[in-house]
Amino acid sequence: MASVSVDDAMRRAIALAARGLGTTSPNPVVGCVLLDPDGEVVGEGFHAYAGGPHAEIVALAQAGRRARGGTAVVTLEPCDHTGRTGPCSHALLAAGVARVVIAVPDPNPVASGGAATLRAGGVDVELGVRAAEAEAGNVAWLTSMRRGWPYVVWKYAATLDGRSAAADGTSMWITSEAARTDVHALRGTVDAVIAGVGTVLADDPRLTARNLRDGTLAIRQPLRVVVDTFGRTPADARVRDGAARTWVATAAEVGTGPDGRVDLPALLAELHHRGVRAALLEGGPKLAGAFLAAGLVDRVVGYVAPKLLGAGPTALADAGVGTIADAIDLEITDVTQVGPDLRITALPRKREG
Amino acid sequence: MASVSVDDAMRRAIALAARGLGTTSPNPVVGCVLLDPDGEVVGEGFHAYAGGPHAEIVALAQAGRRARGGTAVVTLEPCDHTGRTGPCSHALLAAGVARVVIAVPDPNPVASGGAATLRAGGVDVELGVRAAEAEAGNVAWLTSMRRGWPYVVWKYAATLDGRSAAADGTSMWITSEAARTDVHALRGTVDAVIAGVGTVLADDPRLTARNLRDGTLAIRQPLRVVVDTFGRTPADARVRDGAARTWVATAAEVGTGPDGRVDLPALLAELHHRGVRAALLEGGPKLAGAFLAAGLVDRVVGYVAPKLLGAGPTALADAGVGTIADAIDLEITDVTQVGPDLRITALPRKREG
Repeated sequence: MASVSVDDAMRRAIALAARGLGTTSPNPVVGCVLLDPDGEVVGEGFHAYAGGPHAEIVALAQAGRRARGGTAVVTLEPCDHTGRTGPCSHALLAAGVARVVIAVPDPNPVASGGAATLRAGGVDVELGVRAAEAEAGNVAWLTSMRRGWPYVVWKYAATLDGRSAAADGTSMWITSEAARTDVHALRGTVDAVIAGVGTVLADDPRLTARNLRDGTLAIRQPLRVVVDTFGRTPADARVRDGAARTWVATAAEVGTGPDGRVDLPALLAELHHRGVRAALLEGGPKLAGAFLAAGLVDRVVGYVAPKLLGAGPTALADAGVGTIADAIDLEITDVTQVGPDLRITALPRKREG
Repeated sequence: MASVSVDDAMRRAIALAARGLGTTSPNPVVGCVLLDPDGEVVGEGFHAYAGGPHAEIVALAQAGRRARGGTAVVTLEPCDHTGRTGPCSHALLAAGVARVVIAVPDPNPVASGGAATLRAGGVDVELGVRAAEAEAGNVAWLTSMRRGWPYVVWKYAATLDGRSAAADGTSMWITSEAARTDVHALRGTVDAVIAGVGTVLADDPRLTARNLRDGTLAIRQPLRVVVDTFGRTPADARVRDGAARTWVATAAEVGTGPDGRVDLPALLAELHHRGVRAALLEGGPKLAGAFLAAGLVDRVVGYVAPKLLGAGPTALADAGVGTIADAIDLEITDVTQVGPDLRITALPRKREG
């Protein structure tokens, strides 16, 4: 087999890491490629699920003795602590790896220190190879670990003229089955789905990730979070069924923000504490407005149906913007046709001040 | 030179025709390729502006005697009447063309009959080659000629959440300079720009096609039409300046529809009578709603800015839709990034009943 460059190996490791997206939380996605001293690939691995073996361990098991004197190429700094698995830094030292090439350092204060341990053990450690690319593949986890609250994706569905329902309140269905299937896939990649009590009272949604054709539930279900200042969620609301865990977050439990409603930063801090790294905010319009006004949205995913209504509730309300100069500026990063609908992905631009 | 097939020649003729878009009205765009008896291209032409030579005449002039016994490939049935120029059917007969291949028959009752005249003169006439493609290139003109009122394009500009202005009414600028430049280019392709008096009173727009950088006017200006039921357009409104022709269409002049406002079908019939084949409807939201409710919009072009407002007037209002099943269904035919904004083009689906 031909030898590969460290750069090529990192590209491969990043692709491997992505296979774990949606199942590793609260852990990050990680990929690892092991090269022998001649640069031949002797092991590959990725972290597949929380509690399962880390990427480095999978690759080392595959390589066996051929790892000795070789190079480990890994997307995230190897862990240095004993959690549900032993520290990867020690495993790499024990295998006799001579060089470790890392894309991104570990921001997790509990797990970091792997690079230092490896260096102390005489291993040549290099940081920053394809860092931007590896960062992008782990953006939700890295962002949430660095700042201590989850990466929030606001998802909405609307007509081309921005309506989320018709004048009489009907909304089934604004978007196509293809778009709704895409939303369920999106739910499968996050740790929590957040909705306001108004949405629960109006639509009684399940908020689970499921197969729309046969109704079967995905194996892994995000935590369902109802933002419910005054505890109005009915006892028989579908969101309280046994299909997934549910947290009805009241002001009494979480605290009250300046608007007299559930304090959103405190809500997100509590979610982080519960292991939520990525959360999907699914409405309603006022809750989305409150998140956006507070600068708590990291990504916007809009499903836009080629329909016009000209009346009815809008997908977004009360975002704290009074004049055009204060508009919340986004940057569109992707537009994809999903069935007849468009999925528009955009990132809020950092605001000055 | 190698010989080309009739099919290839028609593809070329369609491309030539498109060069006339925006300057031939009230005439259609037409392209023509002349082949000699060996199938070699000996002449090409397109109709460039109303009053100028037709495509066939340009191609015949280029071919001279080499057209004799050859084939004329033309996107639209050659005219049979003497308008500002002589009939093309006669010119083709005089040149001794043996065969004429036509994509689309002429729906204009005044000009049609060219195919019959050619056949009577012993020419072999074939119809329907690449008809759909040629049709698409002339859609506004063909549609308007067949039904007797202009092809209407509704253009709007809005934020991602469907707002055309902020809560305080400010809207300069929702979209980028790139998008606004694109709108001015769009105005250059139509014969009339239509706005409601509410927009004139609120924004005092010029409604001209111009260069946004230096303010210079395009050579050809669409007719400016203000839909103004009660004649409220101020005498000093910009839309009344000398930069282009203006028609303030009042109910007194046009007639009154069932809603007590300017009768829209009568307005469009009058515009057709004045030579308007394609019109750009530029707001406001209620006028757009009235056009859409009446099924009078042929194409929607939305400029969507990656901004969120959460409050303020919407781009569309009062479109006669009360419940989701009655939503106006569109089909998205194009999404193009224009600067930071999206330009979404969609066609209303034919409604049953």
